[in-house]
Amino acid sequence: MINIAILGFGVVGSGVAEVIFRNSKELASRLDGEELNIKYILDKREFPDHPLGNRVVNDIDIILNDDDVFLVVETMGGLHPAYDFSKKALLAGKSVVTSNKEVVAACGAELLSIARSNNIGYLFEASVGGGIPIIRPMWQCLAANKIDRIAGILNGTCNYILTKMEKEKTDFETALCEAQALGYAERNPSADVEGMDTCRKISILTSLAFGKHVYPEKIQCEGITHITYDDILFARNHGYAVKLLGMSKKESDGKVYVLTAPFFVSEENEIAGVNDVYNGIQVEGNVVGDVLFCGRGAGSLPTASAVMADVLDVIRDCRKTIGWKNEEADFLGDISNNVTDFYVRTKAGESVVKTVFGDVKTEKAGDGTAFFTGKMKQSDAEEKIALLGAETVKIRILD
Amino acid sequence: MINIAILGFGVVGSGVAEVIFRNSKELASRLDGEELNIKYILDKREFPDHPLGNRVVNDIDIILNDDDVFLVVETMGGLHPAYDFSKKALLAGKSVVTSNKEVVAACGAELLSIARSNNIGYLFEASVGGGIPIIRPMWQCLAANKIDRIAGILNGTCNYILTKMEKEKTDFETALCEAQALGYAERNPSADVEGMDTCRKISILTSLAFGKHVYPEKIQCEGITHITYDDILFARNHGYAVKLLGMSKKESDGKVYVLTAPFFVSEENEIAGVNDVYNGIQVEGNVVGDVLFCGRGAGSLPTASAVMADVLDVIRDCRKTIGWKNEEADFLGDISNNVTDFYVRTKAGESVVKTVFGDVKTEKAGDGTAFFTGKMKQSDAEEKIALLGAETVKIRILD
Repeated sequence: MINIAILGFGVVGSGVAEVIFRNSKELASRLDGEELNIKYILDKREFPDHPLGNRVVNDIDIILNDDDVFLVVETMGGLHPAYDFSKKALLAGKSVVTSNKEVVAACGAELLSIARSNNIGYLFEASVGGGIPIIRPMWQCLAANKIDRIAGILNGTCNYILTKMEKEKTDFETALCEAQALGYAERNPSADVEGMDTCRKISILTSLAFGKHVYPEKIQCEGITHITYDDILFARNHGYAVKLLGMSKKESDGKVYVLTAPFFVSEENEIAGVNDVYNGIQVEGNVVGDVLFCGRGAGSLPTASAVMADVLDVIRDCRKTIGWKNEEADFLGDISNNVTDFYVRTKAGESVVKTVFGDVKTEKAGDGTAFFTGKMKQSDAEEKIALLGAETVKIRILD
Repeated sequence: MINIAILGFGVVGSGVAEVIFRNSKELASRLDGEELNIKYILDKREFPDHPLGNRVVNDIDIILNDDDVFLVVETMGGLHPAYDFSKKALLAGKSVVTSNKEVVAACGAELLSIARSNNIGYLFEASVGGGIPIIRPMWQCLAANKIDRIAGILNGTCNYILTKMEKEKTDFETALCEAQALGYAERNPSADVEGMDTCRKISILTSLAFGKHVYPEKIQCEGITHITYDDILFARNHGYAVKLLGMSKKESDGKVYVLTAPFFVSEENEIAGVNDVYNGIQVEGNVVGDVLFCGRGAGSLPTASAVMADVLDVIRDCRKTIGWKNEEADFLGDISNNVTDFYVRTKAGESVVKTVFGDVKTEKAGDGTAFFTGKMKQSDAEEKIALLGAETVKIRILD
């Protein structure tokens, strides 16, 4: 019997318990018949009616001091105390499996290093893309590649809202309300719609792909609150879908450029077809070409599926070395030097647009004017766009 | 230094050599600095101008008898002598990594069992989906799931032809010629267009997902040679794309139903958007929901990328237990009992159609009549369709 503890019995934590119960036969078959036992659940709340209610404790030390507990599943969410508890567990010699992107993005290098020193695991498949296999495939299956680019739809809430806006020809606020009514968006949706959630996830994928920790606060971050139906319509008329992407790429200067922003994605690119609450992550390697991973990026059971893959892995004593090193100076490129093509929608008149941007082809979009800038340095584009006045929106084009 | 031998220096074998050369730094970083050395290449031909020309041998025993050779990469293709050489290598205690779907589909259970007995690896990530990570993600990342269904576009040649037929409003033969001209189809394309290649790949995925070997000759197999542009147009007008799928699913009777056939795939399903030479594999698990893996399913470097992931894995001494057991009676269901909805195109008159199928809604398609049957048992559908005469075509609908 293998004893585990679950920290946090919310959406993901209770999903983990359900998967252990529901698929016990499949799990045992992967563990040479050994059974998994949830010895403790750490939560402030009590669950008197739950079959596992008698496993609930509210003191982390009970878990840390119990030598029978082989591994800890951290599904608390939030930075504190999840980070502190994870660190203590690792220092106590217990492997940790987490779904907590905030902790991995903020403290991954440190926790991975403690795990390595103690010859145990700190695994985080569930921290990006919910149940979609992405961390391990990138680390293991694409191991023979230099990664050139990652472009990911990493937030199901934003993707749902953008899809809804297009399908129902509606504005951001209306689509957000529908997403909230369906439980796809939280009452305070800012971490999702302002891009912070995507930012944390692209921080994790970039760190994994390029081997150095990239902290979220160093990543330029734009959300989708300024996108209108007119933008989406303009995009579709020109063969694009509007998607919020986490994006990182290695350029010929050897630096890695990372960004979270809405993009016009060409309909020729399969991620343009990833809709609703689905996530899609496109990885380009120098020998494999591009591969795409899609699925539900959140939810209790999908996320628990990824947590349990890590749990099985730790028990089978593999993949302890997954991860990356500490941050390194000069590793990241300055995103403002990044050359890209922009879509611009503005209330400035056509003559102003042409004075600033030269002979671009303009079109009416809603009660404004829209056009493509052609390729230019981000900083140059931003300078020019500033000249068009406050009511101007820019969206990048994905090559 | 880790010595390996490559059996067969064709498209994939030479790609493996190129990846080892091109990404040597990345590979060494995954092997704690150890270098990979291609000690031998087995091929009947000589390669005097190739930098590795002096490594070429044409006697397998030189490789089998050299204790310095840690693992063998089998990229010969075809059943014999690839199977015989792989078996000898495993019996000699050398791990084998293969891209050869024919050998894995025909003899996987036997070779996996020899590998297990000798505590070495027989790995085959490259045998399905070229460079797309699929074998290991299914085995490892979805390990906590019961697999409910697999639906895969597994043959790039067929997908290219079907995409081309739609885009250029052309017939099968014309699209095939273009595919041949571009090198996407072989001069003798029958293994691709008649579905045998897809059949081998779904045999491998089904064996892996459900744990028992499913031999290709037990899988009903239809190709795409009978598909016309009219079928594709009819499909599109009703919200479907036509795709050749390898499909397997576990039904409530506990049996697994496997099939290779063209399907109408709803545009709501992301695999409908997987076009050109791309492969797309959709896996449904009971906790993860559906996940999709896409990418180039063939080609020298993509396939070599997958081969090298296995090579790294074997060297790092992991995943020896990947695989499945021998075939089992009563494991497979009789596909003729499978209930599905069919699209039918026939030269039979409308009154004949209505006599046989009742009040179905018919439409003109080319110089024939087309309609959906509604859900029925495959054997019933086939009986009724036989009554419509020889010039009748049926295509399944993907739920």
